[in-house]
Amino acid sequence: MDTITLIPNNSLLTSTPEEGRQLAIKMARLIIKATQPDEQKRSQLRDLYANDAMMLIAIGQTVATEFATVAAANNYWQSR
Amino acid sequence: MDTITLIPNNSLLTSTPEEGRQLAIKMARLIIKATQPDEQKRSQLRDLYANDAMMLIAIGQTVATEFATVAAANNYWQSR
Amino acid sequence: MDTITLIPNNSLLTSTPEEGRQLAIKMARLIIKATQPDEQKRSQLRDLYANDAMMLIAIGQTVATEFATVAAANNYWQSR
Amino acid sequence: MDTITLIPNNSLLTSTPEEGRQLAIKMARLIIKATQPDEQKRSQLRDLYANDAMMLIAIGQTVATEFATVAAANNYWQSR
Amino acid sequence: MDTITLIPNNSLLTSTPEEGRQLAIKMARLIIKATQPDEQKRSQLRDLYANDAMMLIAIGQTVATEFATVAAANNYWQSR
Amino acid sequence: MDTITLIPNNSLLTSTPEEGRQLAIKMARLIIKATQPDEQKRSQLRDLYANDAMMLIAIGQTVATEFATVAAANNYWQSR
Repeated sequence: MDTITLIPNNSLLTSTPEEGRQLAIKMARLIIKATQPDEQKRSQLRDLYANDAMMLIAIGQTVATEFATVAAANNYWQSR
Repeated sequence: MDTITLIPNNSLLTSTPEEGRQLAIKMARLIIKATQPDEQKRSQLRDLYANDAMMLIAIGQTVATEFATVAAANNYWQSR
Repeated sequence: MDTITLIPNNSLLTSTPEEGRQLAIKMARLIIKATQPDEQKRSQLRDLYANDAMMLIAIGQTVATEFATVAAANNYWQSR
Repeated sequence: MDTITLIPNNSLLTSTPEEGRQLAIKMARLIIKATQPDEQKRSQLRDLYANDAMMLIAIGQTVATEFATVAAANNYWQSR
Repeated sequence: MDTITLIPNNSLLTSTPEEGRQLAIKMARLIIKATQPDEQKRSQLRDLYANDAMMLIAIGQTVATEFATVAAANNYWQSR
Repeated sequence: MDTITLIPNNSLLTSTPEEGRQLAIKMARLIIKATQPDEQKRSQLRDLYANDAMMLIAIGQTVATEFATVAAANNYWQSR
């Protein structure tokens, strides 16, 4: 696990909601990478979940949870 | 992923709760689009989950999580 | 999706916790309606999940998440 | 749904964390009751989930989510 | 349900994060106990979920949700 | 359970988001360890979930929930 970066740039701050959303996706993917470091196996699993309706929904749930944290860290991008 | 917009208008702010709810639905759908970019495959998967009781409930869970963030970003539309 | 109201009265505010709970149930149902607009199919799916223990629990999870947002929007009905 | 009370006493406030926990359990059960009003069917489903490890865990997840809201409403019972 | 203590010491406050984590585990277990009071059946179910990867992950999810509430109640143990 | 440390260093505070993420992973793993203390069985289960797409997604969901608490405890690393 030590050699895998879990949060790019080691920061939750982003300039925009769009970039925050991209960060949330990356964070979710990096947890999978830390749990299954073998690139080839991950590639096989990606084929599975990209074609499975329930897994796609579950990925959406995970990203939504990550994004809640990223959005709070950025104070929802300050514009309220 | 780079060519897919993840948050329409790059903002979590909406005028009303109804529009915030629509945004939450779109955000959830765009994560699925980013994970499965093939429109035809997504269309097949939509047929699956629109007719599966458990998947419909799981979609509701994901949208509820996204909406929690959108609602907080809008300070619950200020009216309390 | 455009023709379906997602949040009745376009507001998260309710007079009481009981009404907030009713709103949370409605919000959860309206996401299912937006995803599966066919009333007859939804009716068939309702028969399924009303008689399936795991699905009933999952519905409870979704309503709990929606209610968390409604309760926060109402400042937990002000009485603390 | 109209004839079912969803929140006993129409309040999220309780005197103690223990009572708050009891309220969270009741709130979770009342959503199931609102979705499946038939007492006999609910009784059959209870036998199922009380003897199914995964369903018991899922019930725990739902109660945990309800309790988070009840605890926040009570400002965590003020003693911090 | 009345005879089962749901929150030990009737308080969410603990001296340390470690004790808060232990409380979160106990709270999760006590919901299972309230739902399935039969000690022998619970013991059988424990054997099941302690040896099932997906159930172990689901238990982790439930404890994480309980801990979020305990940590907030303790103001994250004051040290930020 | 008493002999297992559930939170390394008995603190939710970390210097950086990256370390906070590592803590969230460890916290999630230690709940599994507390529930299944047998190292050999856990090793077998790890092989299962590291090669199962749905379980990897579920692990991601759990870590995301733990991280939300760690990030809040660290005030999102103060930089907003």
